[in-house]
Amino acid sequence: MPVESLYKTLFLDPRSVVFVGAPRKSGPGSLNPVDNLRSWGYKGTIHIVHPHVSQIAGVNTAPSVSSLKGPVDLGIIATPRDTIPGIVRECALKGIRALIVTNQGFAEADSKGKELQRQMIEAALPMGTRILGPNTLGVSNSFDRFTSSFMPLDREEVPVGVVCQSGVFFVGSSQLTGGLGIGIDVGNECDIGLTDAMEWLGYDQRLKALAIHAEGISEGKRFLDVAAEVSLRIPIIAMKTGRSPLGALAASSHSGSLAGHDRIVAAVMRKAGIIRVDETQDMLDLVGGFLRLPPMKGRRVAVITLTGAGGIILLDTMNLWGLVPAKLDQNSLETVHDLFPPWMAACNPMDIWPALMKNGMQKVYGIALRDVLNDTNVDGVICLALGLDRKHQRYFSSVEEIQNLSLEFSKPIVVWVYGPQAEEVRSQMNQHGRAMTVPSLERGAKVLARMAQYEMWRQRTK
Amino acid sequence: MPVESLYKTLFLDPRSVVFVGAPRKSGPGSLNPVDNLRSWGYKGTIHIVHPHVSQIAGVNTAPSVSSLKGPVDLGIIATPRDTIPGIVRECALKGIRALIVTNQGFAEADSKGKELQRQMIEAALPMGTRILGPNTLGVSNSFDRFTSSFMPLDREEVPVGVVCQSGVFFVGSSQLTGGLGIGIDVGNECDIGLTDAMEWLGYDQRLKALAIHAEGISEGKRFLDVAAEVSLRIPIIAMKTGRSPLGALAASSHSGSLAGHDRIVAAVMRKAGIIRVDETQDMLDLVGGFLRLPPMKGRRVAVITLTGAGGIILLDTMNLWGLVPAKLDQNSLETVHDLFPPWMAACNPMDIWPALMKNGMQKVYGIALRDVLNDTNVDGVICLALGLDRKHQRYFSSVEEIQNLSLEFSKPIVVWVYGPQAEEVRSQMNQHGRAMTVPSLERGAKVLARMAQYEMWRQRTK
Repeated sequence: MPVESLYKTLFLDPRSVVFVGAPRKSGPGSLNPVDNLRSWGYKGTIHIVHPHVSQIAGVNTAPSVSSLKGPVDLGIIATPRDTIPGIVRECALKGIRALIVTNQGFAEADSKGKELQRQMIEAALPMGTRILGPNTLGVSNSFDRFTSSFMPLDREEVPVGVVCQSGVFFVGSSQLTGGLGIGIDVGNECDIGLTDAMEWLGYDQRLKALAIHAEGISEGKRFLDVAAEVSLRIPIIAMKTGRSPLGALAASSHSGSLAGHDRIVAAVMRKAGIIRVDETQDMLDLVGGFLRLPPMKGRRVAVITLTGAGGIILLDTMNLWGLVPAKLDQNSLETVHDLFPPWMAACNPMDIWPALMKNGMQKVYGIALRDVLNDTNVDGVICLALGLDRKHQRYFSSVEEIQNLSLEFSKPIVVWVYGPQAEEVRSQMNQHGRAMTVPSLERGAKVLARMAQYEMWRQRTK
Repeated sequence: MPVESLYKTLFLDPRSVVFVGAPRKSGPGSLNPVDNLRSWGYKGTIHIVHPHVSQIAGVNTAPSVSSLKGPVDLGIIATPRDTIPGIVRECALKGIRALIVTNQGFAEADSKGKELQRQMIEAALPMGTRILGPNTLGVSNSFDRFTSSFMPLDREEVPVGVVCQSGVFFVGSSQLTGGLGIGIDVGNECDIGLTDAMEWLGYDQRLKALAIHAEGISEGKRFLDVAAEVSLRIPIIAMKTGRSPLGALAASSHSGSLAGHDRIVAAVMRKAGIIRVDETQDMLDLVGGFLRLPPMKGRRVAVITLTGAGGIILLDTMNLWGLVPAKLDQNSLETVHDLFPPWMAACNPMDIWPALMKNGMQKVYGIALRDVLNDTNVDGVICLALGLDRKHQRYFSSVEEIQNLSLEFSKPIVVWVYGPQAEEVRSQMNQHGRAMTVPSLERGAKVLARMAQYEMWRQRTK
């Protein structure tokens, strides 16, 4: 097994693990990582080292790392900071080759913390032991039922990899990335860095998108090389914080990293095919888009709207994000055109409201959506759908038409559902098909724009 | 009664109404406006004019407008476009002084439509009859239980006024403005315009915020004057679409209006104290903020975070939107500082995680939030809260502390809740107190920034 891949396994799928410094108490409120690991159904061996207590969370403890019997793949250390270099040394001597140090109070804190961080590295690296952290929740691997996190996390086998410099991307994954299939919180990056983690996850066949949160990027050249290769396989959506002067200053005292000049960072990322997002909600939207939608192969969008205003809002937004309204092939529009009132032409954005008042929602929606999906000038579709109350919804629903056509054509369709019962209709829409519902028209356009940018980079590069 | 105020009453709270051109069928799927009006509990008299059918939706019809008995306040016309100038004339002769023409196919459609629109004006105005529309859902007034809309709407007495050029802001009010207390869709603005509608709603004591959607702004000077006066009373949040060249072109064929040069529009709006938003979700966030939060009197924000990364994301965003991190008074921080580990100082953004690991969530959160709210250098607070699963949530909840302090202090607090059960905790938080939950940190910062901009304009101007 190549060395890199060995460490990946030791950290993300260890056969045995030792906790040093787990809380005495277990159960709700204790934030005991052993509870979390148990509740995830971990199949390996759990050891706990504690000098004073003989049993924690039902596990018989050992008094020291050196007294542990049998080999241990991974150590998870959460003791007071002064004790850590010593414990790291003991672990390395015991032959533990992977360590996660969760505590805070190191390079991000003060000069004493910097010195302690240096000492722990010195104790580990020469022995072939590698360290993740400090200042980290560690790893979380839903597929192999392993987590080092003391914060309770939901286990869900979603094909999303997360590499971050903060536990908020673990705990808040529902809000930030839409899930956490495998996550690595690199914390202070005293040894294992962003690039290592990106490499481990970038080639994991179970993952379809990678979300990265970086406060600083070290190893610029290697980061660029790895990112460019990974990006050819799966999209990397990255949020680089510390963009503002005060943010950069705070980043240095959070994860102890240098934020770097923001424009250079942006250029490097673009070159490597990374999709950079400015806001957390864009990360959520994009991960969702890449997981659910077929590729967006160009910038040409057809809009199917139930209101003129919606079309105009989209034209403004598409213009802002570099999408263009597709020039629809007039021949392919003949069927739908027959449904329009004489005073209105079928164009793009296509406002089908007057047509459906005459001919009914399902008929007009189905024909209009099929027409634009069939059109070779169209790369993707943004459409509007109504979420009326139940008794009206059946007359004005386009859910089935959208779902079925999303499976018949391999072009991305994003749908903004509006109305009093929009939430219910969104949830119906999400149960089937490959169309993606979006919380606003603007966010729908932004998703397609960024997906097009990625796909076009990929076509140019590969 | 002043003339303006008379028309406001006729359109928004009529004692009697006649529908000309209501569908024969009623019930689900028919989009019969009489159904909607009934379901809202309208107390006035409903007439229906129909040449062929004797009863619609349980109402005996009259064969013509002229044959109606008694005075009628408002007519709602939805007949084929060619018939409309004639019907308008008949209504005016009958003494109906307020008309809503819902149909499409006028100035927004073609030259024949333009001519028909001219004719209907000519028939109405000289008789003292005013027209709302065409191409409109008309009005919606939850407080007085009146709606002209053929689309089914929820009635909810929320203090939000909406003036728009598209029905999507009626049907999609949950997604766009967070509610529709009173709404006026001015459609093509053949007579009653944006400025009229803004004036009617701007002084309505039941409303606390006004959301405006405009594709074009005519009567620039009057719009500015009215907006500036209204803005002193309640905030106007405006979305002006047709910003891009293609969007502007589409606006001219949607509501038949001129979109105007975007920079001039922006300058005019700023001068009048209008808060302009670029995205629909900003409108939703801001209406929510103005309804729930106390005024944001300056730009100085204290951040209470549970993760260093959250603080950095906020510093970046605050910098972008013109907020500044408050310089906290070190004296007022003494209590909270004692809870921190020795290697960490209480600063802003204030990462309380290490402190609460030692002292418990409730204690640290309560003290930290009280300290920053007490600080005269702080205008508003952005904070993070955890949404863990139920068994952990009680140990790591800050809901009660935030709710209670939001009522004790008159400074705005926005809260981003993250974690597996964030939705449940958000909904708890929203049940009590004046803190506002936001879907992302960035959106929290943006709300406070825009609210500060408004309040500072108001202080300068009044």
